[in-house]
Amino acid sequence: MALKNSAPSVILVRPQLGENIGAVARAMHNFGLTDLRLVAPKNGWPNGRAWDMATNATGILDKATLFATVAGALCDIHFALATTARPRDMEKPVFSAREAAAKLQRQGKRTAVLFGPERTGLTNEDAILCDGLITIPTEAENPSLNLAQAAVIVGYEWCMASQAKAVRRAENPCPAASKAEIEGFFAQMEEYLDAVNHFRTPGKKPLMWQNLRNIFTRSAMNTQEVKTLRGVVRALYLRRKG
Amino acid sequence: MALKNSAPSVILVRPQLGENIGAVARAMHNFGLTDLRLVAPKNGWPNGRAWDMATNATGILDKATLFATVAGALCDIHFALATTARPRDMEKPVFSAREAAAKLQRQGKRTAVLFGPERTGLTNEDAILCDGLITIPTEAENPSLNLAQAAVIVGYEWCMASQAKAVRRAENPCPAASKAEIEGFFAQMEEYLDAVNHFRTPGKKPLMWQNLRNIFTRSAMNTQEVKTLRGVVRALYLRRKG
Repeated sequence: MALKNSAPSVILVRPQLGENIGAVARAMHNFGLTDLRLVAPKNGWPNGRAWDMATNATGILDKATLFATVAGALCDIHFALATTARPRDMEKPVFSAREAAAKLQRQGKRTAVLFGPERTGLTNEDAILCDGLITIPTEAENPSLNLAQAAVIVGYEWCMASQAKAVRRAENPCPAASKAEIEGFFAQMEEYLDAVNHFRTPGKKPLMWQNLRNIFTRSAMNTQEVKTLRGVVRALYLRRKG
Repeated sequence: MALKNSAPSVILVRPQLGENIGAVARAMHNFGLTDLRLVAPKNGWPNGRAWDMATNATGILDKATLFATVAGALCDIHFALATTARPRDMEKPVFSAREAAAKLQRQGKRTAVLFGPERTGLTNEDAILCDGLITIPTEAENPSLNLAQAAVIVGYEWCMASQAKAVRRAENPCPAASKAEIEGFFAQMEEYLDAVNHFRTPGKKPLMWQNLRNIFTRSAMNTQEVKTLRGVVRALYLRRKG
């Protein structure tokens, strides 16, 4: 499928257990990711235990590439995100797995997601090479999401974002409205509502207006929909007849 | 946390490997699920391999309950969903994991998610006892999502839905608008737009009207927002002054 070409590379940094590398490959295969890169795996490479765990994803292991350093694995990558179990004091944007998937979809260039070693996770030195961090929301006070589980969630969210994008394109070939188009609609509606003195109590206007904007902002309209709404409020306001 | 009380029970039907039972417990713990039920585990119970795999989720295994039949495990459950790898010819609603999480959140009564044995999945006889099916979207032609991976995704989506619900409640304590309230708004807007002859070409009205409804339907308004919009279209249409 075409979308596989834009799928992020998965970079496992100093992974310890072959079983986990195999489980990651299996998760990648299920969710349409194909490029696996290994940085200095602790028990060497190739590792037979990885192939044992990979079931029908051994093709990903066969093609996996080996690097000595994180910088090497990132050499042809334009946008990389580092998975991390805990927030860090770092001047990097932090995304949930869902936000990260949307972000990766929008890049249109080579991307990667990095996962750290099983016990310790990525170091700050690893993360600093990336453009942002991914945290996976959990409920437990002491979550222990293992490497393969984290890869399952990142892969799953990427797959969901791909499928949603494909559906949006099929259902709605019109591009998303720009900020300027949406603000143009809001300015027109505000002008009309001021003209009919809808916000009678001036002090209440800011909150009323914000609530009204939220309804439309949440709807994430496309260019055509904004035009449709502008036509509707104009027609109502002008009471145009036939 | 309060939401744990409403979390679905996880029912593993004839699970084979203790490792997988432990990995499921670990996933449950991470995502705030606590009640594990086992139906006729193939290698008996308790199984030490489960405890080896569960890391900090052994409390879930300690409290897990054992049943001889699926019907027994469902005895106090009001709404149950069966995970399934492939669509079945069955008169049951089918949900994605994300839709299922939202559906489970809305029940307000005891719920459960069933997972089948590793190799074969749930039988039709198992699924027929449930209220609907869950399928997990994948990209591969031959996906092989294992038991623990499927539990990770169901648990993760449940956790995401819980957190979103908590945020929505905090931001927006007003209840979601009912179908009747939304239809009332649409009827009012349609009446006004007909009165100003907005849909000049009668043949085009159905599509124009559907597009317009979609903008508002996507926004998932609450009761207050529907009232706000009704006030806005009334004000524009009546051109009330002062």
